[in-house]
Order: sequence, then structure tokens, then C-alpha cells
Amino acid sequence: MRYSTSFAKTSKTAPHDTESVNARFLTQGGFVHQEMAGVYSWLPLGLRVLQKVSTIIREEMNALGAEEVLLPALQPKEGWLTTGRWDSMDDLFKVPSRSGKEYALGPTHEEIVTPLVQQFVKSYKDLPVAVYQLQTKFRDELRAKSGVLRGREFGMKDMYSFHASKEDFEAFYQRAIKAYLQTFSRCGLDAKVVEASGGAFTKKLSHEFQIITPAGEDTILACLSCFFAQNSEIATYKASDRCPQCGGELVMTKGVEAGNIFDLGQRFSEPFNFEVSLEDGSRQKVFMGCYGIGTTRLVGAIVEASHDERGIIWPKSVAPYHIHLISLGSKDRDRQAHIQSAALEIYETLTNQNVEVLWDDRQDSSAGEKFADADLIGLPLRLIISEKTLKEESVEWKARAETEQRLVKVADVLEEVGQFLKPL
Amino acid sequence: MRYSTSFAKTSKTAPHDTESVNARFLTQGGFVHQEMAGVYSWLPLGLRVLQKVSTIIREEMNALGAEEVLLPALQPKEGWLTTGRWDSMDDLFKVPSRSGKEYALGPTHEEIVTPLVQQFVKSYKDLPVAVYQLQTKFRDELRAKSGVLRGREFGMKDMYSFHASKEDFEAFYQRAIKAYLQTFSRCGLDAKVVEASGGAFTKKLSHEFQIITPAGEDTILACLSCFFAQNSEIATYKASDRCPQCGGELVMTKGVEAGNIFDLGQRFSEPFNFEVSLEDGSRQKVFMGCYGIGTTRLVGAIVEASHDERGIIWPKSVAPYHIHLISLGSKDRDRQAHIQSAALEIYETLTNQNVEVLWDDRQDSSAGEKFADADLIGLPLRLIISEKTLKEESVEWKARAETEQRLVKVADVLEEVGQFLKPL
Repeated sequence: MRYSTSFAKTSKTAPHDTESVNARFLTQGGFVHQEMAGVYSWLPLGLRVLQKVSTIIREEMNALGAEEVLLPALQPKEGWLTTGRWDSMDDLFKVPSRSGKEYALGPTHEEIVTPLVQQFVKSYKDLPVAVYQLQTKFRDELRAKSGVLRGREFGMKDMYSFHASKEDFEAFYQRAIKAYLQTFSRCGLDAKVVEASGGAFTKKLSHEFQIITPAGEDTILACLSCFFAQNSEIATYKASDRCPQCGGELVMTKGVEAGNIFDLGQRFSEPFNFEVSLEDGSRQKVFMGCYGIGTTRLVGAIVEASHDERGIIWPKSVAPYHIHLISLGSKDRDRQAHIQSAALEIYETLTNQNVEVLWDDRQDSSAGEKFADADLIGLPLRLIISEKTLKEESVEWKARAETEQRLVKVADVLEEVGQFLKPL
Repeated sequence: MRYSTSFAKTSKTAPHDTESVNARFLTQGGFVHQEMAGVYSWLPLGLRVLQKVSTIIREEMNALGAEEVLLPALQPKEGWLTTGRWDSMDDLFKVPSRSGKEYALGPTHEEIVTPLVQQFVKSYKDLPVAVYQLQTKFRDELRAKSGVLRGREFGMKDMYSFHASKEDFEAFYQRAIKAYLQTFSRCGLDAKVVEASGGAFTKKLSHEFQIITPAGEDTILACLSCFFAQNSEIATYKASDRCPQCGGELVMTKGVEAGNIFDLGQRFSEPFNFEVSLEDGSRQKVFMGCYGIGTTRLVGAIVEASHDERGIIWPKSVAPYHIHLISLGSKDRDRQAHIQSAALEIYETLTNQNVEVLWDDRQDSSAGEKFADADLIGLPLRLIISEKTLKEESVEWKARAETEQRLVKVADVLEEVGQFLKPL
């Protein structure tokens, strides 16, 4: 991508919501644009991150054996009356229509997915079933805040599983925990599994996935060596205790919640009367679980967990592009043309090998502006081509996460980039 | 995909909305599930079609130089007051919130995208800009009907272009027409370009893209040899006239609208006061165009245009899977096992080569049921493995769009499938 041709550029103006690191860097970096409190537009760079995160999630959910569907945001009132949540859920948007009917604008999809799966599933032989979607959710938050972490409209992966027995549910639930940890790990994040109370959904046990970052809104007691953690409010251990899982050290730290999973029991199969026949001929209400990852929130959590004072430091797996290529100007017109053509050649060599390059080809921006933009946007690797580097037949190579820079021969760039990106 | 593991199966029950071919086949085939009038869930098979259509659209819009974004469904009232459409648009859903505010639930995105692009674009040098999104739209239709063709919630690709001059807009508009025709052609459709009046948007000239099908809701006068067509209500030619573009024969036929493009002029840059500075220092309100393709509607249009009395006939480029592999049963347990293992081997050989195979591996369904399901689901190629075919070391090969069937040696299947799918 030639940066000069993208409409959405970096901005020097900090957004109103300056207390939130993700809002500041995502907005100033040209990743998102706030339309109103809790509602964002995703610009080309931000959408690429969201799509990469979504692809990782899809792969992990498919590997679990779950099937992807797409359920509607606009939902009939009847299902919500059936479960009792039409009146009990405070943050449910209720949409009036011209015909006098009211619809729910889905904050979650149990009211849709339960009768949907019920329609196809009659016997224990048809179970287990797990379905998921990547879809947009709506919640009438009184105080939308923290940038893309808590919105009125937000992206979510929600999965629902259906089982003929509690044991089958529990086995799937454990596999889901592993898939979630794998998902966060592939997004470059250090995630902990935290036992939590189920909030509005259920009194049953549930788990949150917390991304460790000093900017987190939740305080947790976490193991330095494994995935174990507890919510500080209900912790049964204390800091400097040994981890009950692995014997590692427990420390008090901050986290951002990026996912949660719930045992729904028969909370929804009961009101919808979703039964299956068992092997012995008896009938059984199905057991359900639900499993959420906030996709837009996850992008914000990555920024909270991975940045410095100059901008974002994207993990390679979710960076909108791999390489930030900068061609500097020259007062000499011929040399300027030479720099641009050398940059073009590197750009084409790399993109032809499916390396994703954002080329800052602007001719009216200073070197200082370009460096500041590269740090703000935060791609994993910065390559600079200038008069100085071309004298050495080289480019200047600097990884965003490191402080050293060095010269790399133009002829070796493709090979070294391949090494740099190898883990992908 | 092993069909036995998918929760969503075919159904013998026709939906209420039986007048619509797309509703009947998409529902009975297990592609979609109607949640209420005009609102559908997309099941695994249907979502795959929607994703393939979306990928084709993305590629064509990117090739036009447009940038992908994702704009919110929930929109501030202020923008709609600015353009006057808060009160003038009858099918706008208005969403009340707990805080007493009202939001628009976007049926279209001019009120968001115009001030968004305005924020970044200051000079003619920053233009042209074209942005698009694949997103969910909402319209408070009084009579949602025709299956997925006219919904209250539906998928849409909407693109918006911004220009410093009318001439630049017009040049882009012509390129957009070509990209649209290319998009529909890649989806296996015969699309015509129809001059249309702009409806609620504008009195300016605009174009519709009509998919030719006898089941169409619009009557058009179309050329048999090129893309030319006119809406029958405002046609300046008549049936059996010669086409003004190519001299071909004009015939009266039916079509389903699958896309439309509009010259927006300064309809939106005016109220938002979106000006750029020109080369001579003067200021100019920008010229805009908008370009829509209903993605969920397009899936319905494909079904309307490509089916027979037994079911859907998916074009290869958008079929949810390429091949419907059927393993038939045997009363002899050993032979049954032999058939299943031969089918598994073909399934794995093909899927390892990225051929997309739906394997009907059910052991409790009759041959008749499996054949009926294959015709209903409508994948491009059906392969049957049975005792009879295995005696010949063969599979039975039948393209959905053809009537002949023949035996193909198991050893040759991969090679012949490669030939069959080559145009992809």
C-alpha cells in the first residue's frame, strides 16, 4: 500500500477520550474514528487488524469443530419475552417499527441460536453442536468509555455449544479454554484464565480471559509462570503465594478482559423447551455453554498491552502490514528520483512475495514526520531508504520493538525479511 | 466437510413464503433460516456462499482503487438532521436509548462517510477518494418479501466516491460500471446495465444492474448480445428494435436488481459543507457518487437465476463447496466399510488439494434421500461411490448443470476434477 494514496492519515490531535491509550493511538494513528461515545468507524489500517484477529479466531473455532453462522442483529421480541430478558436486561436496545412492533437489537444471541439449533436437533445423536459467528453487537451502555474497550456497538465472536449431558459439556468447555489461550497467544498476547462469577448470565462457574497490562481495568492475582489467575476480589490466594497449578510465583497485576466463557446449564433450553431423546428413550433438556471474544475490544487490548510512549507496537501476527518502508527526500531532483525508484523496486520485490508493505511514499513530508508516523502506526519492521543508505547500497533496518538500527544490503532485504517474519 | 457433522440439514418442509424460489430452496437446502419477516440467519452452507460473493466483490473494489472500511450501524441523529433525512426517510429505524437520545440504525451511510472523509481531505490533491464496506443495513420495510431479496436486515457492499470535479467523478463512474459487470460475471450471472431514475436519492441519472431471470420482479427491455437494457416503464426503444450499443436484438424480459449506482452530485457535500481548495486557490464543494450491491440479495438473485425444479444450480465460483461426494450404503457390513473407506480416501485426496468437498457420509439415509439432497443443495459436481461403481474401480460423475452421468476411474478423479474446476 502506498501511504500517499490512502485517505486516512495520522493526526496530531489527540481525541477527547485521552485517558485511554488505545483510543489515543488508534485514533491518532488513523486506525479508527469515533462517531459518538462508544461507536467507532474502522479505517483501512484498523480494519486490517480486525480482519487478522478475526481470521485467527475463525481458525481456532473451526479447529474446535464449531461451525460458522451469521445471526441477525434485529431480533423478534418473542424470544426475549420467552427467556424473561426483554424486561430484565437494562442495556437492551429496543427498536420500534412503523408497524407498531418492537424488536431487540442483539447484545447477545441465545434467544436466536437456541430455537435455531432446536429446529435441527432432535436426538442425542445430533449432539454435540457448536456454532459461532463474528458479528456486531449492540448494548445501551450508560457510560461507554475506554476507547474501543467498551462500546455501544462492537464486534464479537460468540460461540454457543449444545450437549446431551453435563459431562459432554464440561469436556468441550475444557477444550474451549485451550482454544482461547491458543487464540490469544497467536495474537501475541499473554492471557490468564480467571475464575469469575457469571454476572447476569448464571450463578455457575465461569472463566474470564485477562490480558496482562498495567493499563488494565481489573486487578487480578496472576501466576508469572502459567495461565493461572484469580480475580483479586474473590481470590483465595495472596501475592507471593505459590501457584496451585505449577508452583510459580503469584503477583498482583492489572488485566483487560478480552474473552469469557459461561456454563449456561439449562437456563435457555428450559424456557424454549429444547429437549432431545436419549439412548434409553427418555427426554433430556440440553446443556449449553457460551463463549465470547470481543473482537474490536481485543484490538484495543493489544494496543494497551503493546505500546510505548511513541505509539503502538503491533505483534507480527496481527499488524496491519509487516513493513513500514520509508523513502526519504533529497533536494537534488535526480537523487530524489533515484531514491523513489529504489524504494519502488524493494516495494515490488517484497509485495510480490506476499510481504505486506506500507510504503510511505509521500514527497511533501519531512523525515521527522515520517519517523514519528512509523512509530505511532507501529508496524513490526521499519526500512528507510535515503541518499545515505543508497551510498552503501543498503537500507536502514529497525524493528519497532527494538532500539538498535543497522544497515542491510538491498540485495539481502528479501532474505532477511523472510527470516524476520518466519514464525508467521 | 462431512455432512453428518453439520447441525443444519435439508428440510422437507417448504417455508411460508413459498412464492419466492430463493426462499424455498435456500431454506429447504439448509442455507438460511427465517427468524421473522425480512430477517434471516445464515447457516454454514449459506454463509460460505455469502463469503465467496463478498470476496469477489472485495477483489473488484480493491482493483478499482477503493479502500475498505467498516462504518457503524448505530449512527448519531445529528448527521441525519443535517441532511434532512431524519424526517424524510420513511424506512429509517430510530433507536431510543436509556439516556434519552435517539440514534439512526443505518439503512445507508452518507451521513457517516461524508464527514469522515471530510476530516482527512482538505485539498484537490487529496482526491479522488473511494471507500467501501461490506456491512449490515437496516430498513423498516412495511412489506418485507421475496425471501432474501427484500429484507429489514440485509448485507450490502456500499461504496462512496469523492471528487474535485464532475469530470473526475464521471470517469470513475464509468470504471465502476465495468467493475460491477465484472463482479456479476464472476458470480456466474448475466447482468444488464439499466438506466434508472434515482428514486429518493437524486433526480440525476443513475444505473441499475439487473440479473436476467424469468422470476424477476422488474420488466426490462434488454439486448441479447451486450449489457444494454432499459427499464420498460421509461424505455425509448421497443422489443425487436436493434440495440443502440451493438446492433443486437432487444427483447422484453424480467430481471432482479442486484446493484445500483448513483450520481450524488453535491447533495451531501452541501449540507456538510465539505469543500476542498483547488489549484487556483478557490474552494469547491466535492462531487460524490454511491455504488451499492446487496450481498445477501445477490445470493438470492443467483438462486432465482440458476435453478431447476429440483433445486439450486450454483455457479462454480460461488458454490459453498465444489463437490458433493455421496457414499451409498450396503446391506453387507464389510462392503459398507469398504465403500466408506474408499470415499474417505477420495475425500482426503481432494481436500488435500484444496478442492472443497461436502461428503454426505450419513449411514442412515437412503440413496434416494441423498440424491434429492444433492440436487436441492446444488453443488456443481456430484460424485457417487457405491458397490456398483467400486466394482469398476470408479465413481459415478455427474455435473449438476448437465443430465448425463458417467463412470470415472478412482485413479483419475483428482485429474478430472482439476479440469472441471480449471476456470476458477
